[in-house]
Amino acid sequence: MTGRVPEAMRAAYIDCVGPADGILYGELPVPPVGPTDVLVRVDAVAVNPVDTFVRSGAYATPLPFPFVVGRDLVGAVAMAGPGAPGFSPGQRVWCNSLGHAGRQGACAQYATVAAERLYAAPPDIAGEHLVAAAHPAASAWLALFRHGRLRPGETVYIGGGAGNVGGAAVALAARAGARVVATARAEDAPWVRGLGAAEVLDHRSPDLVGQARRAAPDGYDVHLDTSGRGALADAVDLLAHGGRLVAMVGLGRAATELPVGRLYTRDASIVGFAISNATTADLAAAAEGVVRLLGQTPWRPRVAGRLPLSMTAEAHRRLEAGEVRGRLVLTVAAGNGR
Amino acid sequence: MTGRVPEAMRAAYIDCVGPADGILYGELPVPPVGPTDVLVRVDAVAVNPVDTFVRSGAYATPLPFPFVVGRDLVGAVAMAGPGAPGFSPGQRVWCNSLGHAGRQGACAQYATVAAERLYAAPPDIAGEHLVAAAHPAASAWLALFRHGRLRPGETVYIGGGAGNVGGAAVALAARAGARVVATARAEDAPWVRGLGAAEVLDHRSPDLVGQARRAAPDGYDVHLDTSGRGALADAVDLLAHGGRLVAMVGLGRAATELPVGRLYTRDASIVGFAISNATTADLAAAAEGVVRLLGQTPWRPRVAGRLPLSMTAEAHRRLEAGEVRGRLVLTVAAGNGR
Repeated sequence: MTGRVPEAMRAAYIDCVGPADGILYGELPVPPVGPTDVLVRVDAVAVNPVDTFVRSGAYATPLPFPFVVGRDLVGAVAMAGPGAPGFSPGQRVWCNSLGHAGRQGACAQYATVAAERLYAAPPDIAGEHLVAAAHPAASAWLALFRHGRLRPGETVYIGGGAGNVGGAAVALAARAGARVVATARAEDAPWVRGLGAAEVLDHRSPDLVGQARRAAPDGYDVHLDTSGRGALADAVDLLAHGGRLVAMVGLGRAATELPVGRLYTRDASIVGFAISNATTADLAAAAEGVVRLLGQTPWRPRVAGRLPLSMTAEAHRRLEAGEVRGRLVLTVAAGNGR
Repeated sequence: MTGRVPEAMRAAYIDCVGPADGILYGELPVPPVGPTDVLVRVDAVAVNPVDTFVRSGAYATPLPFPFVVGRDLVGAVAMAGPGAPGFSPGQRVWCNSLGHAGRQGACAQYATVAAERLYAAPPDIAGEHLVAAAHPAASAWLALFRHGRLRPGETVYIGGGAGNVGGAAVALAARAGARVVATARAEDAPWVRGLGAAEVLDHRSPDLVGQARRAAPDGYDVHLDTSGRGALADAVDLLAHGGRLVAMVGLGRAATELPVGRLYTRDASIVGFAISNATTADLAAAAEGVVRLLGQTPWRPRVAGRLPLSMTAEAHRRLEAGEVRGRLVLTVAAGNGR
């Protein structure tokens, strides 16, 4: 199959960290493929807020320049190294951990992916759904199960239940046998209930904390505020004995008040995590969760729009302008297409 | 053996929560002994700060009145229920979880203890050491191993390494194969080094945070500030990737600033716990740790002084006045002694 892989490819890349305008679109060599790597012909890439943090330097991580931006891709195997068993040319695959920690990114016609970071894409799941789900749904899975240690029968609070991360969390938690109390805009409540939330609270209610308490008088075993807007002190007070507050958003936001006494007297904890730190084993477990989520629940990622790969800089600009609700998907044409 | 147990006993008790002056010293019936209980003839009781929180009502917990105060005891088995195998009259025993959550306390000539909360006292360990160690050393054990999940080879920061909890933590962590960086007053540094600390920092140094960082450039896997005086934001910044900050003190102190972004981007967590919430299984594991600590390390609890049981109220007053450095031990005379 090697013969079908060209030597050069189109890619969206940067030569140094900086603003979105620094993203170049042009030709780079097709990356080399190590013995345990897989070369993927990319079909689509999702643009994540974290991609903009990596590009700007706000999230410090080693970057080889020229650095291809982007984390998540869906595509087909072009070539598999001898130490990448289970992958064969033409097979549909996806990945959600490129573009940081020294790894080149996804915004290119070809990307080299370590086999342990690459997952088979089931035939019955649309590639666009998979790539758009990759980051938010894997984040939700890790938040609930790996870091929140959610168990069946427990009660979980999900702030922002209609967002991409929040909706995935609602559906994952409900399917795992937890009782879900979520917040959302009133108009989104039916959708969130359809994902399995037992109760949906209007996030603009002036008595949101009181309502949340009445919805779970014994407290929340897991608290996950995907918006990061709620007050930490209120969240601590809403925790059950032994409860886990999962912190995963709010980078760059001001420090917030923590009532330590109210935390420790109920054996509660605040568990922080960033998906960028996840081990390949955790990412693989999350990937299985993402596939089950798409295959077995009504949840689908919200796709905000589609742009060609050549407009990667524009996608970053829109995201940073706060204009995007949902995921932007970049489509990648084969050949010399742009 | 039942014949040797009188019907009445001397005890220090309260009829309602309130100030130390409300502690009465007088006669109460010897408590009944259930099938899985052990009646203990008490030799000595240690007075803990938490005893004053229970007595005052600051730590809310169900109390049966008249309520005998006190949590930790050392003594001898007077009578064992048929479902308390492994205990026999005359055997030396100790306990550290009476006096809260509906259980009567230790400040009496006799105390009924559920067998699963009672531990054999090794013959080679002084009863006073055991009872004075019970609360601080079990707290340190739970903080490091149960909640901090400390592993050999990790680096741990122990604030207040010369205190009773801190010193126990230094000795336990060093013995478990961790590298210990502790803070203490300069004059206590040799003692803390003798317990196994690799480095002892002067807790009054204006550059304490800088020194702590230089002592562990890769960060601390576990952070345990037994004084509760350090700034939480500094502690978070000192954490290693995946680090655990154990919160166990500071009840009633004002809320403190938490930089959430700096917590989650390093996969770090804040794990709160109160020993009052510990399961009997965790307490039993901690008790084994306490016995090993006393049997196999140079650490000994600091005993601030001894008072007769009749002066329990005075012991509480001294503790609340902040006059006590170390543990006060109440000695219990047999017969009608006071």
